[in-house]
Amino acid sequence: MKFDPASLRYNDKGLIPAIAQDATSGEVLMMAWMNAEAVAKTLETGRVTYWSRSRQSFWIKGETSGHIQTLRDFRVDCDRDCLLVMVDQVGAACHTNRRSCFYTAVEDGVEVEKMAPMA
Amino acid sequence: MKFDPASLRYNDKGLIPAIAQDATSGEVLMMAWMNAEAVAKTLETGRVTYWSRSRQSFWIKGETSGHIQTLRDFRVDCDRDCLLVMVDQVGAACHTNRRSCFYTAVEDGVEVEKMAPMA
Repeated sequence: MKFDPASLRYNDKGLIPAIAQDATSGEVLMMAWMNAEAVAKTLETGRVTYWSRSRQSFWIKGETSGHIQTLRDFRVDCDRDCLLVMVDQVGAACHTNRRSCFYTAVEDGVEVEKMAPMA
Repeated sequence: MKFDPASLRYNDKGLIPAIAQDATSGEVLMMAWMNAEAVAKTLETGRVTYWSRSRQSFWIKGETSGHIQTLRDFRVDCDRDCLLVMVDQVGAACHTNRRSCFYTAVEDGVEVEKMAPMA
């Protein structure tokens, strides 16, 4: 079946969550949002493109930082309301310069930092 | 720092997305939503508990299907508006009886099923 970005289920702001996973290591790197046009751009260009809710504009990941995400595999979930993009990640996915945004663990009720910023 | 579920950033419906990842294989299994009380229950019980938006009730994953998720690692992202739970998954995470909800790939503009239901 031909894929149509309009066939996805977007929230009331026209957005769908997209999980980015390292295609090689399997590490979950970040979660951000796409609108239908960002989905189309991601598939057309092979460069993962989100919609920035704070800036209200397209966010071609790495465009300013150089920390680009090259699309390797694009997945839609069973309910068509969440995406998984498997990527080749250059450098840090997180704006804190850590490889992943999920660097804070909760262990025995306490927050523990599990990852240092990249050199 | 002591972890407080109220310190997370919930959306206007009081929910936060939670990504479930297989703690062993690294496979991303599903994404669902939690409210602050589901977060607390998940941490207290070690059984991953979501908030069902369709049923408007707690959803102790696997309570009826037996496909439970035992919490191995609980992560908070940099913006505190997304969670990653690493789990031991019994059986299928997806209601279609597939291991993962992300079984549909988009390849060259066409949808391709990458995973069969479990036996």
